[in-house]
Amino acid sequence: MCGVFGIENNDKAASAVFTGLLNLQHRGQEAAGTAVYNCSSKTLRGCVGAGNVLNVFNNNAAATAISGNCAIGHVRYATSGKSSLQNAQPFIFNTKSGFIALAHNGNIYNDKQIAARLQKSGAIFAHTSDSEHIMHLVEREKGSLIEALPKALAKINGAYALIFIQDGVMTGVRDPYGIRPLVLGKLGKSYILASESVAIEMSGGEVLRDIAPGEIIAIEKGKIKKSFIFERKKNYAPCIFEQIYFASPASKVCGKTVAKARMEMGKLLARQMKDIKADVVMPVPDSGVFAALGFAKEAKIPFDMGLVRNHYMGRSFITPDQKVRENIVRIKLLPIKEKIKGKRIILIDDSLVRGTTSGKIMRLMKSCGAKEIHFALSAPPVISPCFYGIDTPTKKELIAHNMTTAQIAKFIGASNVNFITLPNLIKAAQGTKCKTFCAACFSGKYPTGIKI
Amino acid sequence: MCGVFGIENNDKAASAVFTGLLNLQHRGQEAAGTAVYNCSSKTLRGCVGAGNVLNVFNNNAAATAISGNCAIGHVRYATSGKSSLQNAQPFIFNTKSGFIALAHNGNIYNDKQIAARLQKSGAIFAHTSDSEHIMHLVEREKGSLIEALPKALAKINGAYALIFIQDGVMTGVRDPYGIRPLVLGKLGKSYILASESVAIEMSGGEVLRDIAPGEIIAIEKGKIKKSFIFERKKNYAPCIFEQIYFASPASKVCGKTVAKARMEMGKLLARQMKDIKADVVMPVPDSGVFAALGFAKEAKIPFDMGLVRNHYMGRSFITPDQKVRENIVRIKLLPIKEKIKGKRIILIDDSLVRGTTSGKIMRLMKSCGAKEIHFALSAPPVISPCFYGIDTPTKKELIAHNMTTAQIAKFIGASNVNFITLPNLIKAAQGTKCKTFCAACFSGKYPTGIKI
Amino acid sequence: MCGVFGIENNDKAASAVFTGLLNLQHRGQEAAGTAVYNCSSKTLRGCVGAGNVLNVFNNNAAATAISGNCAIGHVRYATSGKSSLQNAQPFIFNTKSGFIALAHNGNIYNDKQIAARLQKSGAIFAHTSDSEHIMHLVEREKGSLIEALPKALAKINGAYALIFIQDGVMTGVRDPYGIRPLVLGKLGKSYILASESVAIEMSGGEVLRDIAPGEIIAIEKGKIKKSFIFERKKNYAPCIFEQIYFASPASKVCGKTVAKARMEMGKLLARQMKDIKADVVMPVPDSGVFAALGFAKEAKIPFDMGLVRNHYMGRSFITPDQKVRENIVRIKLLPIKEKIKGKRIILIDDSLVRGTTSGKIMRLMKSCGAKEIHFALSAPPVISPCFYGIDTPTKKELIAHNMTTAQIAKFIGASNVNFITLPNLIKAAQGTKCKTFCAACFSGKYPTGIKI
Amino acid sequence: MCGVFGIENNDKAASAVFTGLLNLQHRGQEAAGTAVYNCSSKTLRGCVGAGNVLNVFNNNAAATAISGNCAIGHVRYATSGKSSLQNAQPFIFNTKSGFIALAHNGNIYNDKQIAARLQKSGAIFAHTSDSEHIMHLVEREKGSLIEALPKALAKINGAYALIFIQDGVMTGVRDPYGIRPLVLGKLGKSYILASESVAIEMSGGEVLRDIAPGEIIAIEKGKIKKSFIFERKKNYAPCIFEQIYFASPASKVCGKTVAKARMEMGKLLARQMKDIKADVVMPVPDSGVFAALGFAKEAKIPFDMGLVRNHYMGRSFITPDQKVRENIVRIKLLPIKEKIKGKRIILIDDSLVRGTTSGKIMRLMKSCGAKEIHFALSAPPVISPCFYGIDTPTKKELIAHNMTTAQIAKFIGASNVNFITLPNLIKAAQGTKCKTFCAACFSGKYPTGIKI
Repeated sequence: MCGVFGIENNDKAASAVFTGLLNLQHRGQEAAGTAVYNCSSKTLRGCVGAGNVLNVFNNNAAATAISGNCAIGHVRYATSGKSSLQNAQPFIFNTKSGFIALAHNGNIYNDKQIAARLQKSGAIFAHTSDSEHIMHLVEREKGSLIEALPKALAKINGAYALIFIQDGVMTGVRDPYGIRPLVLGKLGKSYILASESVAIEMSGGEVLRDIAPGEIIAIEKGKIKKSFIFERKKNYAPCIFEQIYFASPASKVCGKTVAKARMEMGKLLARQMKDIKADVVMPVPDSGVFAALGFAKEAKIPFDMGLVRNHYMGRSFITPDQKVRENIVRIKLLPIKEKIKGKRIILIDDSLVRGTTSGKIMRLMKSCGAKEIHFALSAPPVISPCFYGIDTPTKKELIAHNMTTAQIAKFIGASNVNFITLPNLIKAAQGTKCKTFCAACFSGKYPTGIKI
Repeated sequence: MCGVFGIENNDKAASAVFTGLLNLQHRGQEAAGTAVYNCSSKTLRGCVGAGNVLNVFNNNAAATAISGNCAIGHVRYATSGKSSLQNAQPFIFNTKSGFIALAHNGNIYNDKQIAARLQKSGAIFAHTSDSEHIMHLVEREKGSLIEALPKALAKINGAYALIFIQDGVMTGVRDPYGIRPLVLGKLGKSYILASESVAIEMSGGEVLRDIAPGEIIAIEKGKIKKSFIFERKKNYAPCIFEQIYFASPASKVCGKTVAKARMEMGKLLARQMKDIKADVVMPVPDSGVFAALGFAKEAKIPFDMGLVRNHYMGRSFITPDQKVRENIVRIKLLPIKEKIKGKRIILIDDSLVRGTTSGKIMRLMKSCGAKEIHFALSAPPVISPCFYGIDTPTKKELIAHNMTTAQIAKFIGASNVNFITLPNLIKAAQGTKCKTFCAACFSGKYPTGIKI
Repeated sequence: MCGVFGIENNDKAASAVFTGLLNLQHRGQEAAGTAVYNCSSKTLRGCVGAGNVLNVFNNNAAATAISGNCAIGHVRYATSGKSSLQNAQPFIFNTKSGFIALAHNGNIYNDKQIAARLQKSGAIFAHTSDSEHIMHLVEREKGSLIEALPKALAKINGAYALIFIQDGVMTGVRDPYGIRPLVLGKLGKSYILASESVAIEMSGGEVLRDIAPGEIIAIEKGKIKKSFIFERKKNYAPCIFEQIYFASPASKVCGKTVAKARMEMGKLLARQMKDIKADVVMPVPDSGVFAALGFAKEAKIPFDMGLVRNHYMGRSFITPDQKVRENIVRIKLLPIKEKIKGKRIILIDDSLVRGTTSGKIMRLMKSCGAKEIHFALSAPPVISPCFYGIDTPTKKELIAHNMTTAQIAKFIGASNVNFITLPNLIKAAQGTKCKTFCAACFSGKYPTGIKI
Repeated sequence: MCGVFGIENNDKAASAVFTGLLNLQHRGQEAAGTAVYNCSSKTLRGCVGAGNVLNVFNNNAAATAISGNCAIGHVRYATSGKSSLQNAQPFIFNTKSGFIALAHNGNIYNDKQIAARLQKSGAIFAHTSDSEHIMHLVEREKGSLIEALPKALAKINGAYALIFIQDGVMTGVRDPYGIRPLVLGKLGKSYILASESVAIEMSGGEVLRDIAPGEIIAIEKGKIKKSFIFERKKNYAPCIFEQIYFASPASKVCGKTVAKARMEMGKLLARQMKDIKADVVMPVPDSGVFAALGFAKEAKIPFDMGLVRNHYMGRSFITPDQKVRENIVRIKLLPIKEKIKGKRIILIDDSLVRGTTSGKIMRLMKSCGAKEIHFALSAPPVISPCFYGIDTPTKKELIAHNMTTAQIAKFIGASNVNFITLPNLIKAAQGTKCKTFCAACFSGKYPTGIKI
């Protein structure tokens, strides 16, 4: 998961990217950066750094000080083991058609095969991220960027939302299944491309539409130069985890506000669990809040907040002492004892992947005297890994791959565990713009035809 | 506002302070620090830094690496204009009885008079914070720390919760009116002193009791050496803003959980506003959440979240561009349009001081199509400045000092503005341990006898 | 100008590179870095940073903490305008034969043509330094690194000393004219490659020999696997500026200690200037010291130090105030007035390129009362730019391209200016291992056949 | 050892302090800082940091950006164990007469007694440096700063050069024996006070005179308001180590240029050693250079540089690996083998304290084939510790306290060791302004009457 943002025809393009990325910060806190094209000096300059957007842009005068009219930015999700700085995007490359910058959200499944084929004919890779592959493939084709892209992307099995800058032209691309999101907006005389609608609206702009699956759009000086579908698959398959977890509740995804989709997940979960008696519905904040509101409304059980999130713990938290580590979940989630004590609680979280965090939450609530914990999840059991950019573990680490629901409940210490059904999830996620989804992590069916 | 934490008789005292301060981080993000006494080497070493606890302790190996058995820590609230580093606490002083460390939450009203008197007889001040005054006064008295403190503190008009370390003894003090909070807890063989109960519980410890108004307590090697009331005023007057805004909802203040007190504020507001028709109750997150839950329950109007907080904006946010500044409230609070559009909304926030932020929120909600905004505050009108440690502005900047409620509503753009009454606030805040409060900012009556 | 260092078969390879680079620090202070191969884990990891070696290695735990047996390092010379961090070496690339690291000292003349040709067939460049070109060319050839190198390097017109690491093999390369230096040494069971002999000796190692012009040498596990001349030009043409300025006086270049070569430059200058009467010979420290010693001895005129260098001014010096800028030469060079006042001085510096610094030095010495300043340079007039890695300006900025010697003297304010003749310089620089040199900057004759 | 600099009546006072400190950087690299008084806003603001002047002033916009007309600065010498940041000067104190800043070079011998006495009457110390004592003593006296100083300083046994700023008045003080240096200069309409003349001259100013032993001078708006001798001892006793080691060779101390004094030390050493046959005179750079030049001239033995200093090793050098540590002297001093091999060398260094570094130098030179090393020191044997601000070790660590000269030669591995005699040293150091010195470290006779 990452976030991308681009704006063109704007005298303060770097500042606009800063604001845009602040509203996409929830999509990644490992690294951030920008690349800015200046139409007068015809230069493309970049600045990247480790950490969140405020760190990178506030600490580094260079970032917002780069003057230019067309800029893209990127926030990178924390993944383990790889150098954050080396892979911080946007990447800038010098190519046969000059300098070009690239920001990528997504993941390429056949990256190793592509790399091997490219390397065989002499390609060298300066980054360890698979985003560089796209640039290689483009440059192996003839013609301009938008001529080369369809041929290059035909070789890729994967998910991508891309924004390029070259010579003052901002080009956006979305993969043929539309797995990763990309939204078009307008702010005054400038077009914006962003991972989520919230980043356009919070910049003061207006959302125009989703970039279509398989669409390439090239924008220059406030005009859409060209827009076409280079390849479109029958099955539109946007990642359903956006609605469950990634997207901001204030964003519209597939034509439906995420907060609303989550409330419907809660509502449908409530119908699934109508036989369970409980005193209160509580979310694991923040991701479970809207599903819990929807559940409570449907079930007519009071909504309450029994856990409060300590928002000062970033993802960069490093424990000074081994013994402190067990306490982290306690530090991130503060319980309000008397709201928990003696209660039969429906506790709502977004998903259950490995089960370790859920186990800690159950122990925390029991230590506060919870009588029953009916654990409800607005995602079905995760049984297959994601190859499209979400950092899920391998099959054998997926608790739902190894255990029945009853076993999971026992393992984590819940009274019972209740997953939303996949049909119900899809029903909740469906908006006016899209009825089908990639739900490979729940179904094992990969839209791009991956067999595992 | 600041937070203090101390622990003794603990082999990992510096790590314990780190964990403790993480849970008090909401009380101040400007600076943080620790001072650690090592009983073997008989040394007292400190480490302070600008920024939040994670920055200071993670970036600075020294902080958690200081080995020792008795440690105190401090988080400092952002105030403008003064050097954050120079005033970061704990302070360490070399005195007639050796090295001593001090962490202070509160404010001294007669600091200038005290300083002038002290300076006249030769005292020099190395910090610009008034906490240094206390140390000066103590050292001008005869006897040990606990012998000197009563005489020294008799000269102070103000509010304070203090923790000292000297020679492995941790000493806690609370002002005679109990304006600032200080709680005693136990973790295994160690005693803890902390500004809030949540910091004790989240460290795995057990809350014992509030330090009494006017109490001095000295603890050493897991034993309470001495505890006595050096001076107690008739009127116990803990700051009521703890319940309204400062304290964590998970803390117990005056014997009542803060979340519960806030729900009661909401309930009583609902009774005050029972004639208002509305479709939904919404909080300004995060501080308005529990009052909104209480209001919704009482008024039987649905609770919903129409505004979502972007938690990645710290207080250290510096805008790169003047024009961006107007957008900041938009960046900190993301609206969910369809929850707002066409609705008659009861919007609940904690307090209204200058009115500028509230005005921005009203404009934001109106731009999303809110039909009516009935603005409800879980604090009465702020009409007098605080001299006890809360960063309120001067009288003329206080909107409620200058306008009627109707004028305020017009000024900020709300359909109407509804302050909780002071009696109702007090009713909501009262717990088993305390029935009276300092509410000087609402009443102009200062418990320590300040006339303005 | 840059410096490179490599060591293999050494359990503390990263530490050894640190020590080695410290002794090459005079060759570049803009950036530094290392890449380390671990034979057990079969991983290649790197760490680079802006600033000098101590900054990069001391501030960054990662640098010396990378465990491995085979490592290379690089120091980068300060050049203007380009991002220091993006071009900090060693570069690490992922190629058809796996990860490979590269450190390069030198410059490619036909880089733009090579890039254009490579880009045309799809190559993308992630750095703006020309060192990446070499890797591209290698990867376009068949076979292993040492099989591909001769074919790849045949396409390059330029100067280079290269060290690669791949799979635990350290490979060194020197260009066919031997323009840039590369020396082979041994330390226990480890081979070392370094830009200068001093870095080998100061590491406790023994200097074996210069890598020959056009030689490729591959070393693994303490054994020279292969060594051969891939291409050798008739005219061995090592850069004569090493003897004049770049190399450490303690290094041996071309079989002659640099300090000795500089003394001989001074001796021959003394013979050229035998008609000039003077009271004292003084160097511009540090680069003029040995030439001045040689001059004084030959001319039997006393040697003295009338200027002392302030060694705390790094190259990163940024003046806080425009008016301070004129004073910088004063801050870098402190005059000892009474050694200068009333004296007829022979002042010896290494070279005169633009004339601006020399002008400031003359004004400084005159302000101290120098009677006559006979300015002597151990380099001939610089009349042509260097295309092989030295940061000389364009022709029109070269003072000797635009003015006669008499005009230069008048311009800078010297009594007269005396350049060593090219034959004398060559005579002084000649060692047992080499009699011919690249002196293109003085003669306009470029060994690789560049016409300008 | 530290350095102080002050300037008044100057619109760019902070920049001027920056330039001044750069020229005093050789006196201390541990920490640096400035305090600036602004006559318009009547504010006194400071900025201090760890590291050298460039680090502190370049990294910290605040330092040179503080606008004001009157500023002082300080560089702090590296000492072990104490927090560099906490003790970085200038100190700023808030006193009965307002804010006051203090920069101090020197050391107080009776600091513990003074502290004990002050603490007894209630004083608290916020720093661990003894400079704070002076401020305490001043503030215990009646009257203005210059009225209080004589009475306060009468209580101090020690050495000090002080510069204060208060309300736009710059006040300089030198101890009654003149142990620490302080020089008065003028730059346009501004007066300057500085530890060394070089800092005045390199700022473009003119040296007026040394502040006299026991003098207090108060300067305001370009006028000397008051200047008087508060106490003068018969024996003027400036520290003779300034001439031997600390001062810049370009400074004038006691009316004699330091370079000249060092040449005379060399000349007199040559006379002491006239029976020794040698091929060459070499300095240990940089501190031995001028003594070696003087020796060579007198003895008519050729001067040469057989050791070159690597100036990139700062004092902050931290070895990454225990085994590297032995190599440090090799890294700091690069030998030029053929200048050493087979030679009978007179090697000149400034002083011999513990003998460890000298031993490493001997081993280094022997490993290069030196035939004989006649080691000559421009300081007599150090037999007593310094209590006046020089970081000498305790008696038992002083090699000359424990061994005869012959034993020392054997211990370090020299052919012989030759200390300048104290009378000869004094003869060389004497200038027009001073004939007597503090030479307590050589004689055990402390001018302020310390008995050990």
